[in-house]
Amino acid sequence: MKIIIDAHGGDYAPAEMVKGAITAVNLIEDVEIILAGKQEEIQKVLDEYGYTGQKISILPATEVISNDESPTSAIRTKKDSSLVVGLNKLKEDDDIVGLISAGSTGAVLAGGLFIVGRMKGVLRPALAPTLPTITGGRTMLIDCGANVDCKKEYLEQFAIIGSTYMKSMCGVENPRVGLLNIGAEEHKGNSLTHEAYELLKENKQINFIGNVEARELLSGTVDVVVADGFDGNIALKATEGAALNVMKLLKTSIKEGNLFEKMGAGMLKGVFKKLKSTLDYNNLGGSPFLGINKIVLKTHGTSKAETILSCVKQVVDIHKSGFIEKLREGIEEA
Amino acid sequence: MKIIIDAHGGDYAPAEMVKGAITAVNLIEDVEIILAGKQEEIQKVLDEYGYTGQKISILPATEVISNDESPTSAIRTKKDSSLVVGLNKLKEDDDIVGLISAGSTGAVLAGGLFIVGRMKGVLRPALAPTLPTITGGRTMLIDCGANVDCKKEYLEQFAIIGSTYMKSMCGVENPRVGLLNIGAEEHKGNSLTHEAYELLKENKQINFIGNVEARELLSGTVDVVVADGFDGNIALKATEGAALNVMKLLKTSIKEGNLFEKMGAGMLKGVFKKLKSTLDYNNLGGSPFLGINKIVLKTHGTSKAETILSCVKQVVDIHKSGFIEKLREGIEEA
Repeated sequence: MKIIIDAHGGDYAPAEMVKGAITAVNLIEDVEIILAGKQEEIQKVLDEYGYTGQKISILPATEVISNDESPTSAIRTKKDSSLVVGLNKLKEDDDIVGLISAGSTGAVLAGGLFIVGRMKGVLRPALAPTLPTITGGRTMLIDCGANVDCKKEYLEQFAIIGSTYMKSMCGVENPRVGLLNIGAEEHKGNSLTHEAYELLKENKQINFIGNVEARELLSGTVDVVVADGFDGNIALKATEGAALNVMKLLKTSIKEGNLFEKMGAGMLKGVFKKLKSTLDYNNLGGSPFLGINKIVLKTHGTSKAETILSCVKQVVDIHKSGFIEKLREGIEEA
Repeated sequence: MKIIIDAHGGDYAPAEMVKGAITAVNLIEDVEIILAGKQEEIQKVLDEYGYTGQKISILPATEVISNDESPTSAIRTKKDSSLVVGLNKLKEDDDIVGLISAGSTGAVLAGGLFIVGRMKGVLRPALAPTLPTITGGRTMLIDCGANVDCKKEYLEQFAIIGSTYMKSMCGVENPRVGLLNIGAEEHKGNSLTHEAYELLKENKQINFIGNVEARELLSGTVDVVVADGFDGNIALKATEGAALNVMKLLKTSIKEGNLFEKMGAGMLKGVFKKLKSTLDYNNLGGSPFLGINKIVLKTHGTSKAETILSCVKQVVDIHKSGFIEKLREGIEEA
């Protein structure tokens, strides 16, 4: 199974991307990685780590898309960037199943849409991370920023896309779909949620459980949370920020604590580490961009080799689960 | 200074409301509390706590508005409810400076708007809690659910209202105003934030620092975060939920830990308690409903006597700060 990694996306590119690729081909059977990017730079890192195997190849590209550029114009003008070259290859070659990038979110979305292309029948592909819940499961938040000013029909499709993913990837039999809203009651919300509620309630393809509030995101009471991309992004970043700041505050309080408290904290090191790791949704891999013709994963800009490894595993799993075909069927059925 | 408390709002009404009133008149000088609600029930609690002083009086009302009712119709039909009777008294009597309720948010907002009335020139009054930041300060999030489907002009006014509050109540000299958005760059966001950005950038009455992401809410980098009420509510509840769930997860991890870890947790009890108290924005009092003619505070449905005490202090502070007059001037200037 061949997977492309954008070697120049993210804060630690290309070194950590290359390291992640080496780890992946060593640990996962039948995986071949194609690193898209500057040949010499990539080769240098491969040499550094003494990799001489046949499971990693380089797809040459001379340009890099940065976070500061306008995504759409970057995709149009930087034809020889690692991302554009990689996405073109992904589109053309049937043997390649997916692409992973830690680069500019906007560029990955624009490229996925314009180069790889929307799946027939899909109105708006969506960015859809799964968050770790305190009950040990996962909740998908769809959309998280690919689409703003959504129409009700987009949200209805997000529900189908999300349900298909949770079914095929996480083995959830009848995924509970909730609509992100500011109250549980049906009459709550804005004009979009009022309209979307009606559509979701009538849809027989999904298991709609009604409105859910943003405080439910980590509680494990819902499998798929449907939202306009603006609201989903706000909810995701608020959740992320709060979790991070609570941990920071805990750290500061311990630092300012007395010797006795510092000892206690030392004894709890393992617990803290586990907590941090549970909360870090980057451990789960990347956010899939769903509704396009192939698998494209956007991972955090701060991703290191370990996250890249998780991403490769995730692409393998999505491919093996038959998600793309199942979604195609689901969309046709609708 | 006279303040009304809705004796029948919240999960612990009327007992905790009455207890809060007694504590407030005992601890805060020159404060008189008027408890709006069922005379016998309130008197019974006053007797229980042996209160025979002159600083608490009862404003009789026979009905109660519940959380399940439609707020607007409840305000219209339940003329003898504790909330409606209280708000009418607040409006009529110049000696009464504010009202506190732990009841239905919708009813408090509808009542504040229809009974107490919008301040002249204010387009949309807003619900605006201040969140505790990890730097020890506060950040106001305005609006948090009073207005959905906002227009750009509402957001511009929220910025003025929020700045006036942070200046007069928290002594922030030149409050930094941020627009809640899904990215820091000017071009990010949906059609509302694009339009609002332009207005905020040009407004000379405020100190606009640009877009802020939801992850900044607790970080102390901004004083006033302006948002459509739907988005503000999502951000608030996601923040609340994440903080709560992190604490829950920590608790579970400790419970599942070994004896050594449990001992460590015991040694950190003080730190955990302090953390919880810092994060609990209910400790700070209630969320003021700003832009109406008098002070109305909505506090959490789970509020107990201690929170009611904080709320009374907050009403006193708002009154003493001259916020209402300052806002009137600010709106006129605009």
